[in-house]
Amino acid sequence: MQTVSRLNAVIETLRSASGRVQRVFIQEERGPYKLAEVIRLAKAQGVPLHFVPKRKLDLMARDHQGAVIHLAAAEFSSLEDILGSPQVPFLVLLDEVEDPQNLGAIIRTAECAGATGVILPERRSAGLTDAVMQVSAGAAAHVKVARVTNLVRTMEELKSKGLWFVGAEAGRKELWYEFDYTGPVGLVLGSEGRGLRRLVSEKCDQVLSIPVCGRVNSLNVAAAAAVFFFEVARQRLRPA
Amino acid sequence: MQTVSRLNAVIETLRSASGRVQRVFIQEERGPYKLAEVIRLAKAQGVPLHFVPKRKLDLMARDHQGAVIHLAAAEFSSLEDILGSPQVPFLVLLDEVEDPQNLGAIIRTAECAGATGVILPERRSAGLTDAVMQVSAGAAAHVKVARVTNLVRTMEELKSKGLWFVGAEAGRKELWYEFDYTGPVGLVLGSEGRGLRRLVSEKCDQVLSIPVCGRVNSLNVAAAAAVFFFEVARQRLRPA
Repeated sequence: MQTVSRLNAVIETLRSASGRVQRVFIQEERGPYKLAEVIRLAKAQGVPLHFVPKRKLDLMARDHQGAVIHLAAAEFSSLEDILGSPQVPFLVLLDEVEDPQNLGAIIRTAECAGATGVILPERRSAGLTDAVMQVSAGAAAHVKVARVTNLVRTMEELKSKGLWFVGAEAGRKELWYEFDYTGPVGLVLGSEGRGLRRLVSEKCDQVLSIPVCGRVNSLNVAAAAAVFFFEVARQRLRPA
Repeated sequence: MQTVSRLNAVIETLRSASGRVQRVFIQEERGPYKLAEVIRLAKAQGVPLHFVPKRKLDLMARDHQGAVIHLAAAEFSSLEDILGSPQVPFLVLLDEVEDPQNLGAIIRTAECAGATGVILPERRSAGLTDAVMQVSAGAAAHVKVARVTNLVRTMEELKSKGLWFVGAEAGRKELWYEFDYTGPVGLVLGSEGRGLRRLVSEKCDQVLSIPVCGRVNSLNVAAAAAVFFFEVARQRLRPA
């Protein structure tokens, strides 16, 4: 069971994940204007609605804004589920992205960009926790997310099925748009601190960079993901 | 005076904003491995280094990881400063982006993408607070950020100086890459909930969208910013 408590996330989740919403709790006391929208959505979708004292919500979630929803646990998909999609595969592989804020943001953007699925290694990766669900604004309930024991072996398996892999890493000469993403492709992103592991990087057909200006000189991994994902979308909207 | 306490942000800030770092505090107790890098950087740059008991750091910042630095307050630039840059202007205008997480992330990405400056309205916008500085990983100290009393009037003034404005908004037919960004340009982004205000949107020469798939159906404003910013970068790297 998962909890969603930030008000915008509650509304997005009710709009999009109604099948998974088990209960909605609303504080009896007067709250923000948007609670009316939460009540309207819950009623429209026939989700059980409970009016409770604010102190009861405080026990459920520290950061609630007058509403909390309970979701059935997010389930992992299998690799077969992901490959079963009718669209040309556009997979996202995350190599040890351990920060829930980044994982949630990447999953949200992946869903918006039309990714077929997200693949995480079982170890050293954030799971589909409440924090990830919240940041993803509910997207983690829609994008197919699979966990695999060995990312390198999965890449080998997928290559034999015709996928091409593009790794994202700082400092390469080849740039992020210098690849034809209209075929079956997997994008591989590493953790913000360490980047791609060597074995993962070696399995990529190409490793590309987003060159950065400025003095801070490091792009957040969720921002880099957005740039790569929508380059795929751009090319698929208008093939080169 | 500003405080930076997340360890990666401390390191990035020391690497890039040494002129603004006033003091570095390190806990006397054994801490994460990366503290050695903080100490090395502080020494290399001659910044005063203080070893203090961990409980003293706890009072300075709730979320520290063994090191806290004090920065001279970030200063706002003037519009003239920003326009004084020798490069072809690439301005970022934020219409009431109130969330510090989003503002910090946008500033960090703007610096990486080579934006000339960021313009915020004085009202209903997050300021350059500690939270914004942290999320921006120090970039907020480098990108020129100006505050203006009236965004619409500023846009008029800049238009008379030859700038073109592109607004980002959901639901338009014209897509984010359908504009020639190689000239002097200002990108205008609105708040996540409300989008662009009508008067701001009307002042734009063109309003473009990033089409989204999926069921959540709303791109986070910092992710949208990354996609727009690096479309500018892509076109300037390789003019159409």
